[in-house]
Amino acid sequence: MAAADEDEGVPIIRFGIMGCADIAKKVSRAIALAPNASIVAVASRDAGKARRFIAENALPVGTKAYGSYDALIEDEDIEAVYMPLPTSLHVRWAVAAAVKRKHVLLEKPTALVVSDLDKILEACEHNRVQFMDGTMWMHYPRTARMKQVLSDPDLIGRIQMIHSTRAFSATPEFLETNIRIKPDLDSLGALGDLGWYCIGAILWAVDYQLPRSATALPAVHSNKSGIILACAASLHWDDGKVATFHCSFLCNTAMDIRIQGTSGSLHVTDFVIPYQEDSASFKLITGAHFAELHIGWSKMPDEVLTLTNLPQETLMVQEFARLVGLILSSGGRPDPKWPDTSRTTQLVMDAVKKSIDLGFKPVTL
Amino acid sequence: MAAADEDEGVPIIRFGIMGCADIAKKVSRAIALAPNASIVAVASRDAGKARRFIAENALPVGTKAYGSYDALIEDEDIEAVYMPLPTSLHVRWAVAAAVKRKHVLLEKPTALVVSDLDKILEACEHNRVQFMDGTMWMHYPRTARMKQVLSDPDLIGRIQMIHSTRAFSATPEFLETNIRIKPDLDSLGALGDLGWYCIGAILWAVDYQLPRSATALPAVHSNKSGIILACAASLHWDDGKVATFHCSFLCNTAMDIRIQGTSGSLHVTDFVIPYQEDSASFKLITGAHFAELHIGWSKMPDEVLTLTNLPQETLMVQEFARLVGLILSSGGRPDPKWPDTSRTTQLVMDAVKKSIDLGFKPVTL
Repeated sequence: MAAADEDEGVPIIRFGIMGCADIAKKVSRAIALAPNASIVAVASRDAGKARRFIAENALPVGTKAYGSYDALIEDEDIEAVYMPLPTSLHVRWAVAAAVKRKHVLLEKPTALVVSDLDKILEACEHNRVQFMDGTMWMHYPRTARMKQVLSDPDLIGRIQMIHSTRAFSATPEFLETNIRIKPDLDSLGALGDLGWYCIGAILWAVDYQLPRSATALPAVHSNKSGIILACAASLHWDDGKVATFHCSFLCNTAMDIRIQGTSGSLHVTDFVIPYQEDSASFKLITGAHFAELHIGWSKMPDEVLTLTNLPQETLMVQEFARLVGLILSSGGRPDPKWPDTSRTTQLVMDAVKKSIDLGFKPVTL
Repeated sequence: MAAADEDEGVPIIRFGIMGCADIAKKVSRAIALAPNASIVAVASRDAGKARRFIAENALPVGTKAYGSYDALIEDEDIEAVYMPLPTSLHVRWAVAAAVKRKHVLLEKPTALVVSDLDKILEACEHNRVQFMDGTMWMHYPRTARMKQVLSDPDLIGRIQMIHSTRAFSATPEFLETNIRIKPDLDSLGALGDLGWYCIGAILWAVDYQLPRSATALPAVHSNKSGIILACAASLHWDDGKVATFHCSFLCNTAMDIRIQGTSGSLHVTDFVIPYQEDSASFKLITGAHFAELHIGWSKMPDEVLTLTNLPQETLMVQEFARLVGLILSSGGRPDPKWPDTSRTTQLVMDAVKKSIDLGFKPVTL
């Protein structure tokens, strides 16, 4: 049973954090900021590491430090887990947590292959726990505003083309030691870590309509172990829509979506992590044509601004905890929206990976 | 011999305009504005149409109206021709003009296939006349500024990925009657009319290094006659660089280049026709990383602004006329830069067309 906030009557969901990856620092801050969530325990394979994490991130006094993931999921005080483990460990630990009736907020990419994700989703479904992946930008007010724009037939029209880029310039140290380039930990490399965002953005734009096919472009950079450091792909729908994306550990930081419709275009250059925490914008232009003699345009793109009081990762935790609270208070079923979006994203990521493995042949979905 | 501007000593090159297409209105204004160019004649297959063009565009009193292209290129008073004819007519009339020792400013796309362009370029070379295609944005000060940025290893680093889009939303009337969708006049459709810009921008960014291969994406829209209304393609270099582009008559107006390098990115959304005539900008971000906890960025893109006193099409005419003036005054040879850039662009366009015709197979260049 969730603890109740006496002033508001909002249940406060009690989280355990499984793993002390860098991203856990950001999300532990988010849990602390969320009005309906609290941290009660942190687990690492090394209890000392968990204790240091608690101290360094100023988690509440009394936060428990566990030296094994098993110990954390056995803790009956914990209602939900946030799991920033290496991708290869997701299936084992997300299933184990679900079996113990812990709701699962799982870092992306959700799994190495969709069959692993299906095991996780089946365990969550069977145990009636909420599943959500850790894609933060989905919860940002700008994202909802962009979706409003995309849904208005007068603004964008039918989507014809989408391009997305997600990149950062990895340090030599990252390229040597980071788990995201280790074959036994995160064998999807840049495709899993960054391509996940591009694929997710493209699918989000088309309301998760599955493409007919995915084709990787012959532009893969790999390290000595065969881990993808950069790749690109195109996605194709039966109606002729096309999307391309490029993800890379070898480029300057970038996170773009460009959506091109019959009557307008939308463009954002910081979709994953907004330039600033409290406000974000996108560019929109509709019905543009040229001035007389084709000298200049009839209009310039508008900048559409959205504001927020809470960081996007806090909004993610808040929404996840709200869904958990509904299940705990009313005994209802988990919301299928988030498992469905994760699964569609994973399916397309699998297809791109398969296309790379097949030498850039189209893979039908 | 070019007429001399007595004040400046700058030779004024005398132009004939061959064809009264809409674009000729813009270029005739450009010739009028260029300090080293003047219009002396206009030709159409219908002399009345040429007369109307002269009157409607307020060309100088005394501008001659010809009812045939042959008549214009026979006129010994004319030193250079601007040729906005349908692409299928380029090889015939550009060769004919060169043989008559007229310098040739030819609308893009330059030809239906590179073998036709080679006939034009050989005729120009043999007759020692300057060739230039009508890609206006190449002559804009912003373009030179962007090239400075791309050439600075500290700003962009090694280019890894380029994406370009060029689109406009054609009217039903255009899709029924425009020469750019007529198989006997402009059989390249959107690839020739719009893809030319994308390919040109990509090649410009990489200093015209020819890609190893071009692969069209299975996203072609065609009309009943098989003319391309929209298509997309990827280009690949041996060093792993990749470029994608999308061109379409079926989308809202767009003209983007996004260049992603190891240490920075450059982005422009109005590269073909600037939003406004007298100033233009692009976005540049170098060495971006995330703020602590990956909350926000360390910096936002800079907007780099360039100003101009003359429209880009005037700058194009001025540069062409300057090169013509050098040849006329010193008897020198034509500048190979412009024929070379046109030919490289045409080669890649041919490869994309071939890939479409082969069912989206990679075509080696």
